Amino acid sequence: MTGPLVPTPDASCRLRPVTTARLDGGLLAERQRVNGEAAVPSGHERLRAAGNLDNLRIAAGEAAGELRGPVFMDSDVYKWLEAAAWEYARAPRPALLEAQRAVTAVVAAAQRADGYLNSMVRERYRDLPWSHEHYCAGHLMQAAVAQSRATGDKALLEVAVRFADHLVATFGPGRTEDVDGHPVVEMGLVELYRETGRAGYLELARWFVQARGHGLIEKHGHEPTYFSDRVPVRDQRTVEGHAVRAVYLTAGAADVALETGDDALLQALRRQFAHMLATKTYLTGGLGSRWEGESFGDPYELPPDRAYAETCAAVGGIQWAWRMLLATGDAAYADAAERMLLNGFLAGVSLTGTEYFYVNPLQLRAGAHSDENRSPAHGRRGWFNCACCPPNVMRTVASLGAYLATTDADGIQIQMYAPSTIEADGVRLAVETGYPWDGLIRVRVLESPQREWTLSMRVPPWARGAVLQGDDAEPGGYAHVRRTWQAGDVVELRLPMTVRVTTADERVDAVRGCVALERGPLVYAVEHPSADDLTFEAVASAEFRPELLGGVTVIGLTARIGEHRERPWPYAADRPAWSGERAEVEAVPYFAWANRGTGPMRVWLPDGRR
Amino acid sequence: MTGPLVPTPDASCRLRPVTTARLDGGLLAERQRVNGEAAVPSGHERLRAAGNLDNLRIAAGEAAGELRGPVFMDSDVYKWLEAAAWEYARAPRPALLEAQRAVTAVVAAAQRADGYLNSMVRERYRDLPWSHEHYCAGHLMQAAVAQSRATGDKALLEVAVRFADHLVATFGPGRTEDVDGHPVVEMGLVELYRETGRAGYLELARWFVQARGHGLIEKHGHEPTYFSDRVPVRDQRTVEGHAVRAVYLTAGAADVALETGDDALLQALRRQFAHMLATKTYLTGGLGSRWEGESFGDPYELPPDRAYAETCAAVGGIQWAWRMLLATGDAAYADAAERMLLNGFLAGVSLTGTEYFYVNPLQLRAGAHSDENRSPAHGRRGWFNCACCPPNVMRTVASLGAYLATTDADGIQIQMYAPSTIEADGVRLAVETGYPWDGLIRVRVLESPQREWTLSMRVPPWARGAVLQGDDAEPGGYAHVRRTWQAGDVVELRLPMTVRVTTADERVDAVRGCVALERGPLVYAVEHPSADDLTFEAVASAEFRPELLGGVTVIGLTARIGEHRERPWPYAADRPAWSGERAEVEAVPYFAWANRGTGPMRVWLPDGRR
Repeated sequence: MTGPLVPTPDASCRLRPVTTARLDGGLLAERQRVNGEAAVPSGHERLRAAGNLDNLRIAAGEAAGELRGPVFMDSDVYKWLEAAAWEYARAPRPALLEAQRAVTAVVAAAQRADGYLNSMVRERYRDLPWSHEHYCAGHLMQAAVAQSRATGDKALLEVAVRFADHLVATFGPGRTEDVDGHPVVEMGLVELYRETGRAGYLELARWFVQARGHGLIEKHGHEPTYFSDRVPVRDQRTVEGHAVRAVYLTAGAADVALETGDDALLQALRRQFAHMLATKTYLTGGLGSRWEGESFGDPYELPPDRAYAETCAAVGGIQWAWRMLLATGDAAYADAAERMLLNGFLAGVSLTGTEYFYVNPLQLRAGAHSDENRSPAHGRRGWFNCACCPPNVMRTVASLGAYLATTDADGIQIQMYAPSTIEADGVRLAVETGYPWDGLIRVRVLESPQREWTLSMRVPPWARGAVLQGDDAEPGGYAHVRRTWQAGDVVELRLPMTVRVTTADERVDAVRGCVALERGPLVYAVEHPSADDLTFEAVASAEFRPELLGGVTVIGLTARIGEHRERPWPYAADRPAWSGERAEVEAVPYFAWANRGTGPMRVWLPDGRR
Repeated sequence: MTGPLVPTPDASCRLRPVTTARLDGGLLAERQRVNGEAAVPSGHERLRAAGNLDNLRIAAGEAAGELRGPVFMDSDVYKWLEAAAWEYARAPRPALLEAQRAVTAVVAAAQRADGYLNSMVRERYRDLPWSHEHYCAGHLMQAAVAQSRATGDKALLEVAVRFADHLVATFGPGRTEDVDGHPVVEMGLVELYRETGRAGYLELARWFVQARGHGLIEKHGHEPTYFSDRVPVRDQRTVEGHAVRAVYLTAGAADVALETGDDALLQALRRQFAHMLATKTYLTGGLGSRWEGESFGDPYELPPDRAYAETCAAVGGIQWAWRMLLATGDAAYADAAERMLLNGFLAGVSLTGTEYFYVNPLQLRAGAHSDENRSPAHGRRGWFNCACCPPNVMRTVASLGAYLATTDADGIQIQMYAPSTIEADGVRLAVETGYPWDGLIRVRVLESPQREWTLSMRVPPWARGAVLQGDDAEPGGYAHVRRTWQAGDVVELRLPMTVRVTTADERVDAVRGCVALERGPLVYAVEHPSADDLTFEAVASAEFRPELLGGVTVIGLTARIGEHRERPWPYAADRPAWSGERAEVEAVPYFAWANRGTGPMRVWLPDGRR
């Protein structure tokens, strides 16, 4: 078994992930290709240049010099190692194996005799809310499991086990009662438990989840909301504070619920996810409305221009959604994961694979300016001082095959549509599709045992008029075909790919009077020099353009472009409506914006239809 | 002569401030009363409790202990001393004089032999971008001038002169070429020049203005925009970066332009002020759209909910506008100053005078939550860790009399309307009015020399239909009466006080489809439990309510209040418009919000008039 999440046989899963699925072509496979060929090798170079590897060598006593970078520098190494592992599983290359073994050796050498490992922290656990010591440990565990599953190498796993044993011996009730300010160790420990069977890791993860919201972080003199420590996870009714912290915590809590069968915890997480979707999620699936504290805002506070929507928050959102899908079998979580993946997440990386957005707004104004390293105003960047996003993108893209399908006792559920091969329980399927550009999804049975089972295909909630094998398929759930299958059988699902003109709830003040364009699972954006002065009138066309942006469907629209005239004072009574010149304008998938230079962009267009 | 700004006889002023005017009653006089009776004494107590005075005693070697608070702690002491001086001028009380003398002695004792003075900085001028050493010096100078003008005491002036002499000897071309990251020393030096006649202070202020935008701050490894150091002041076309820094710098530059007759510099400042008004000013006059860096946003980025609009930025905005008015004679600057003063600034302080908003948004959502000390979600607070705003409010309120009127060779211009007495050039006037509640302003001549002079009265741009002595008065400038005046003469200006339903430029995306209510110079706000679900329909009434909020005119409006129903996903095609229940709702002046508890509030109301 491979893939980043492999529940134990005893886990309370409604669905189990198919971890042997692979992408064979299309949009996501192309992303995997550039990720493997360009991004992962460049990541190794970045770790060298930024000092991450030197820091570990200094910690090991193998090099001299000053430590460089923020306190969580080690985590970038681990995320890169995880990316390298999944990439090796996807496309084995000796050079990559060699590189990850070399980096693994650097990591192993820095480990202390008692299992502790951190190159940056001088005095252990002195200020766990800020020190990221467990955070780095969690990423180490995820990387170690990936390496074990993808390459069979156990070197990093041994490091992670030693560290985890140290944590089990050190933290928990009656031992040190403290939690890391940045969750992820919860997911790491549960996955390490899944890989090794050592129950202490699950127990510690459970305790870390339970311990939150009881003042442990306030004891260190920090305000709790930012750290998801204001309210116990079981009592929380929303998501708040630092977005990445919040969704990493809930994803880890979902892992705990999956493995412990804790239904009350799962219900609390359902409630939180629902409130996030209803009031704190951008149309792109982006999470986090505020630059201040990289945090969720108040309900319905979703400004497109100042959206933070950190690329890492999209990663965490996908991880949480996927765990909720496995726990509940509710297709709505796959819908959410797909939206996050194909929009908010995918915008975080350039078509070349090697440039990244940290922040993913839904609007960029003409003349936007910022000195800030993370600002989208100056386009994607190759790396950041705080470089959490780039290797997070790499590991996620490399492991996308793990999010394609699930199984249950009845059969196989196809969750994400892409040209792919899916193997599970003796069944082998080929998915043939031009999705997300085309709505026809053809599933061809390549192999099947001689027994009845159900093929379930997710019908997204936007797919009104979907047809499966000639029958209407209800959007917002799964359409099923149950039979005894033969090799060569074909099932066809047709999802309508009409352009949708979407408005927002009246409480989303920041986009009142605007529309957004969606087609299939994709949110669209207008990149136009006059985006600041543009009013939507009508959708005119939708056309696949193979030469554009790696091949995308472009939406043509008619708009009016106002004259950009500055008034001395922008407020007045009874202002006449803009007239403006009628113009034909193109919208491209949001994920592809800022690949032709970075300029004015908007997802939400003022609505001039009346 | 008194007042915080007294140009030299040689200054290039179109207008000169009347510094002997005083408020006799009404809204602002009541603010001065509580400021003097409650706020200024409580401020003294806060300085004691927060450690500001102890820090100075420690620096003087008169006390032991740890320094407390941020690096700019001394500046709070100086702002309080300035407030105490203006308050003493307004209402002399022996206890206040005694308190300010005692605090002055604490300050004086901490001064070094060479004139340097800072209780917090260990190593002088090591990191001037962050150390606020000149910033504290600037506030010291302003306080010292205030004390000299208001009380005749010279003790603080001597301290300031010694510090200024040290700065002149230390900084400038051929000496240390460096600038403070936080402007204010420019205003301080120019005022100290005005008070002492020492040209070196003006020259150093001029150099500090000139030196900005040439990489001095970047040399310390900081990005320049935040510090107003990206573009030379003469070349800048907008305001950007940290809002308070930006407007303190431009206000200081305006002082330099006034005293040096530098017309090119003045033109650059006009351009910047115009761009600020046109694209970066809230309806309330609030400045600064972003919590991140407490900064101006991109043009038209003016979110009401995440408005920062720091109280100190309103103070700086008023100071800048007032200097531009004196330099140009253009009433538009007085219009801007009035808007800032009566809305964005005045909201920063409670009706009791002793509680402060650091941040002044134009919307607060139901359930808004923040751990952040500065957040308006939990209402005004008595003090802050970073306590710049409270004593800034105190000094500004205490000196409001200085912003009422100006003179030129032709006569007297009344700039702000309030019950007041204005004396200048042998003329004594009484202004009788219920403004800003009532639009009738009666000016009574109490004394006048036997010569012709012109009484000019500002007619705000919103005052369409204004009438002066029976004749139409054009809004957006001054209406004039020229004659030889006799004691007992009366002039009447009537400003129309109809409620205005205001919309914003289409580019102010955040308030598209909304209206705001204004009446006279005041912006209104709806404080209502259902403010999140409210749609404006019509203005129904405007009524003065003497018992409410210290006496305010309330606007009655009809609205629809939607049912607050959470949808699982807030985005959909062709959403039906809200219906909602019709309700009568009250709007109160924005400045008075959050004096009856802090809950949902909005200035911009969704427009349901069609």
